[in-house]
Amino acid sequence: MSAASARPAPAAEPALLDRADPEAEIAKAAAAYSNWGRWGAHDVLGTLNFLTPARRLAGAALIRRGEAFSLSQRFDMNGPQRGWRRRTNPVHTMLDTGTDAAAGKQGFPHGIGGADDVIAMPLQCSTQWDGLGHIFDHGMAWNGRAAADTVTSDGDLVTGIEHFAAHLAGRGVLLDVGRVHGDERGELPDGYAITRQDLESTAAAHEVEVRPGDILVVRTGQFARTVREGWGEYAGGPAPGLSLTTAGWLHGTQIAAIATDTWGFEVRPNEFDVPAFQPLHQVAIPNMGLVIGEMWDPEALAADCAADGVYEFFLTAAPLAITGAVGSPVNPIAVK
Amino acid sequence: MSAASARPAPAAEPALLDRADPEAEIAKAAAAYSNWGRWGAHDVLGTLNFLTPARRLAGAALIRRGEAFSLSQRFDMNGPQRGWRRRTNPVHTMLDTGTDAAAGKQGFPHGIGGADDVIAMPLQCSTQWDGLGHIFDHGMAWNGRAAADTVTSDGDLVTGIEHFAAHLAGRGVLLDVGRVHGDERGELPDGYAITRQDLESTAAAHEVEVRPGDILVVRTGQFARTVREGWGEYAGGPAPGLSLTTAGWLHGTQIAAIATDTWGFEVRPNEFDVPAFQPLHQVAIPNMGLVIGEMWDPEALAADCAADGVYEFFLTAAPLAITGAVGSPVNPIAVK
Amino acid sequence: MSAASARPAPAAEPALLDRADPEAEIAKAAAAYSNWGRWGAHDVLGTLNFLTPARRLAGAALIRRGEAFSLSQRFDMNGPQRGWRRRTNPVHTMLDTGTDAAAGKQGFPHGIGGADDVIAMPLQCSTQWDGLGHIFDHGMAWNGRAAADTVTSDGDLVTGIEHFAAHLAGRGVLLDVGRVHGDERGELPDGYAITRQDLESTAAAHEVEVRPGDILVVRTGQFARTVREGWGEYAGGPAPGLSLTTAGWLHGTQIAAIATDTWGFEVRPNEFDVPAFQPLHQVAIPNMGLVIGEMWDPEALAADCAADGVYEFFLTAAPLAITGAVGSPVNPIAVK
Amino acid sequence: MSAASARPAPAAEPALLDRADPEAEIAKAAAAYSNWGRWGAHDVLGTLNFLTPARRLAGAALIRRGEAFSLSQRFDMNGPQRGWRRRTNPVHTMLDTGTDAAAGKQGFPHGIGGADDVIAMPLQCSTQWDGLGHIFDHGMAWNGRAAADTVTSDGDLVTGIEHFAAHLAGRGVLLDVGRVHGDERGELPDGYAITRQDLESTAAAHEVEVRPGDILVVRTGQFARTVREGWGEYAGGPAPGLSLTTAGWLHGTQIAAIATDTWGFEVRPNEFDVPAFQPLHQVAIPNMGLVIGEMWDPEALAADCAADGVYEFFLTAAPLAITGAVGSPVNPIAVK
Repeated sequence: MSAASARPAPAAEPALLDRADPEAEIAKAAAAYSNWGRWGAHDVLGTLNFLTPARRLAGAALIRRGEAFSLSQRFDMNGPQRGWRRRTNPVHTMLDTGTDAAAGKQGFPHGIGGADDVIAMPLQCSTQWDGLGHIFDHGMAWNGRAAADTVTSDGDLVTGIEHFAAHLAGRGVLLDVGRVHGDERGELPDGYAITRQDLESTAAAHEVEVRPGDILVVRTGQFARTVREGWGEYAGGPAPGLSLTTAGWLHGTQIAAIATDTWGFEVRPNEFDVPAFQPLHQVAIPNMGLVIGEMWDPEALAADCAADGVYEFFLTAAPLAITGAVGSPVNPIAVK
Repeated sequence: MSAASARPAPAAEPALLDRADPEAEIAKAAAAYSNWGRWGAHDVLGTLNFLTPARRLAGAALIRRGEAFSLSQRFDMNGPQRGWRRRTNPVHTMLDTGTDAAAGKQGFPHGIGGADDVIAMPLQCSTQWDGLGHIFDHGMAWNGRAAADTVTSDGDLVTGIEHFAAHLAGRGVLLDVGRVHGDERGELPDGYAITRQDLESTAAAHEVEVRPGDILVVRTGQFARTVREGWGEYAGGPAPGLSLTTAGWLHGTQIAAIATDTWGFEVRPNEFDVPAFQPLHQVAIPNMGLVIGEMWDPEALAADCAADGVYEFFLTAAPLAITGAVGSPVNPIAVK
Repeated sequence: MSAASARPAPAAEPALLDRADPEAEIAKAAAAYSNWGRWGAHDVLGTLNFLTPARRLAGAALIRRGEAFSLSQRFDMNGPQRGWRRRTNPVHTMLDTGTDAAAGKQGFPHGIGGADDVIAMPLQCSTQWDGLGHIFDHGMAWNGRAAADTVTSDGDLVTGIEHFAAHLAGRGVLLDVGRVHGDERGELPDGYAITRQDLESTAAAHEVEVRPGDILVVRTGQFARTVREGWGEYAGGPAPGLSLTTAGWLHGTQIAAIATDTWGFEVRPNEFDVPAFQPLHQVAIPNMGLVIGEMWDPEALAADCAADGVYEFFLTAAPLAITGAVGSPVNPIAVK
Repeated sequence: MSAASARPAPAAEPALLDRADPEAEIAKAAAAYSNWGRWGAHDVLGTLNFLTPARRLAGAALIRRGEAFSLSQRFDMNGPQRGWRRRTNPVHTMLDTGTDAAAGKQGFPHGIGGADDVIAMPLQCSTQWDGLGHIFDHGMAWNGRAAADTVTSDGDLVTGIEHFAAHLAGRGVLLDVGRVHGDERGELPDGYAITRQDLESTAAAHEVEVRPGDILVVRTGQFARTVREGWGEYAGGPAPGLSLTTAGWLHGTQIAAIATDTWGFEVRPNEFDVPAFQPLHQVAIPNMGLVIGEMWDPEALAADCAADGVYEFFLTAAPLAITGAVGSPVNPIAVK
């Protein structure tokens, strides 16, 4: 059973990449899988347009037991960030505490006391959605807009993540590639490039169909490995992830969004013999308008799916409505 | 039809408050409506215990059209905070921008460019959940724990909001008290104390039943007023809100959580002639273990409910999984 | 006695501004008083070049009593910022506290306890230096560099304030224009444009000479007024300050730096009948390379100067060595 | 020539520590070298009381050439912090940039453009002063105050570092122990406990006298090593530093303040065979009221001192006037 069965076949992607020429490979994929203009000149939703009320309603029908699962990692100092691009782990500090209240230091009447807190964090420090303004291709942002007209120091003036606020609830599908194609622990090795065939055979093994408007969650097992072994280079180092060659599949399936349990969604090191950086992002975000999630924790959900054999569910993963943000932390909730 | 019909009547609350003695009134309500020990000595969920899988499943059945509504205000500098208790509006800054990318300043290969961002914000600056460690009663936190053992400068060591991560999805009910009891715009005046009778008559007007495990959203109309007139003293000034006398109803209905469109959930000024501060919080959070939301934006949902007459829905309002936080920003998603 | 006596007369500035044409007035002054290239193509110090070791040594000779004065306002939430350009007041939070230590919550051995803290603040929220990358003129930064090549999201890549680190110690002169030209309280009214004549007559009244390499402190009295009356619109509203027509004097005196007790250094509203914004900044920073300080608190020093009649002193005002910053908080120390 | 020659001999310190009993050793030193009450019950300055105007004036006489040296490390993400106690490196972000200005995105009139920035940082992330509220001894803060009455979540309510604002300018002395007692590079090995004898012989080698009211800078060479080899465990790992046995010397010399080029001032690992943490801090800050600086960069100054043989200078090291802070970043300026 393939994702293609329910709709026109996606454009065929090249079987092989020219590993010496990332710019050409990216350009080819960008041209082949662009969605610029597909939803009009003023679009700010990208592939979230595929997530229609009808498809959301269909997703709701998957709630059969009422069990809820959080797919969020913890937000705290014990995170993977090491400062690359000034990304730190979240710094959570208290404005008021129980020790203060107990010591009688708060000055409130009738015995009330309180605690309050503050956070400072990069919006992409942990479990997150990338906004459409997160990545540019040769100075162009999603839907053919100039990057310089879209994201300034004031934030994303056009496609800020606040536009996603009400949209990210729908049918969720877990593709546990780690379990199907990985080692005995259900983990893919770092550097493993997940192909279209891997995705389709995983769906087949799960007896689940990928449909337009879906929010896919791809489990590689890398996060589980960090839980066991420590963060190591999770934030930017080698990792399993999607191959650039999956761009056509991502386009053709008409999924609304896709998230992984890795830092960077796509395989790392990237699939070129010359300097390259996140080529699938460059195709998917500015050209395809694909909504990408990273650093999710699918472990509890994956264990449940493995136990009951049901890999589809209702998924709500609402970003914070931060005006002009190009990313947002999120606590995705799957309900089965 | 009243909320009481489906279960034992809640304990009667006093019809009148002694406006000279907040401490005694709070003590009475705290004693009458305490849930300490109800879910064992180790409980970290409070009234979220009422939100069982069966009740979540029942809530899912309310999704009939697949329409989704965000109940979040925007997170940005144009917010209501004015510095009280060092609460600022969110400060969102960019680490990388489209103008940089367009100017060729990013140093990435093959034409990829990016934007990244950071936020610094109080966790209760805008649409939010209060955690169980947010309020103390005479040095005691939820479930009878010492405040000083619970919330230190390291955060809430016991009942941090990360424990809520997977729980806040279930049946939502909107009680649009503003529309039922307010002015022609559907707004209650500042200082209006919402009573049990108001809540029950609103539910009756909506032909909706409040059930155990529900997540209630109470609309006063104050937020709509700020949209029209500017923030003014929204963050801490006079506001409509729940009366302290509703404590018994909040306890008896066995709701899982309740949120309002105001800064402080309860009526302000508080209902005493002597200095008082958020007495209903003091009863509800540390004693009852009630999960409270504030600063929600119910406007789009309320308009839809008024249009179709359906005031129940599936609501997912997942806090960020911030370790040890006593509150969390949230983007609540109602699906009808 | 005038500043001009010790060196060649500064270029004459126009007596009158064309209040309808800020762009032309700025262009004229920028051309007349540009220092581009004066200290070579690679200069990162601007007018700090005037502060030579010999002049610093002369300043040191002014220390006669050993009395020290801080010219810093307090950094805390009770500040003037109201969110314009996302400038907040400083948010200072604790990582550890004495209440925690006293409650035995810190886990340290042998009875040691500690407190630690964090700050989040705009670098120009209170007493500060402007860096050379703070202002641009038609896309050009100090010394004729393209603004886009100088200050990106990574900060000021060329003239970051860290380059000032060792330089800002030298001869300080207080020009208490408020005391000489203001009301009985020694305060200039908001909107008062301080002219070259005001500066020179103040120096004459003080019997102090302005010399090359000096760090000038100009007191308007506006800060004293806010201490008495509250912040009001201190951060960006009407204020006394330097007239655009002082540009020639600022250039000709060869001062190293100049600071005021106001938010914006120059008079506000600005001296034009059409929309204008900080025109003297536009001349002084990118064209002249002048180092400007704002929001200083000269009150204690000014009282002492009035008492002993000595308006010159040794001044150390070292910015934090923040890599790439375009401004820095500072605690200026005058020693007499 | 020794520090002791000019004044009464300091109390003799124990030649040897009982390495099994830090609590007893700390208690002995705390009792022997306490300054509680020395400057009255309301004191907030500790040993800064020793830095009188007369001594500041004497320090000013040391300015002979007008050369200034910054003793600050750089504040940026390339710092030593690794998250211990939530201490991160500074996160500096831009509110406005030159790329924005050049792209015409700022909306200002007459060609003016601007850049603005924000910082979030622990106050002790880099070159800093410890405030008197930074360390407690068995729940007691400086001058015999209860820690819980002194430092709450609102900060240091009594001895906040803003009280130091005008005081830290005076005679500075560099003791380059690394150069005198270290290896051929002038560096002490990690774990090297600097003794009173080391300090006195270094002063003798430098032909400089340590006097009451001095601000001492002790160079171990460890910072120079990190410049060459990378940060490694600079923030909390093994380091050269003062021995606990120097407490008596620190007390007897009546110095106003002392700073080192290391993270933690005292030798690490600490000098005990059982768990111990910063015992000299526990004696020096809450008991002696000693003002301690850490993470200074003395390299440029030390090279100059070695070259001209003059190890005394005028030093201004003014902390930011952050209300209630228990530490502050600082850019110390030595002028010779």
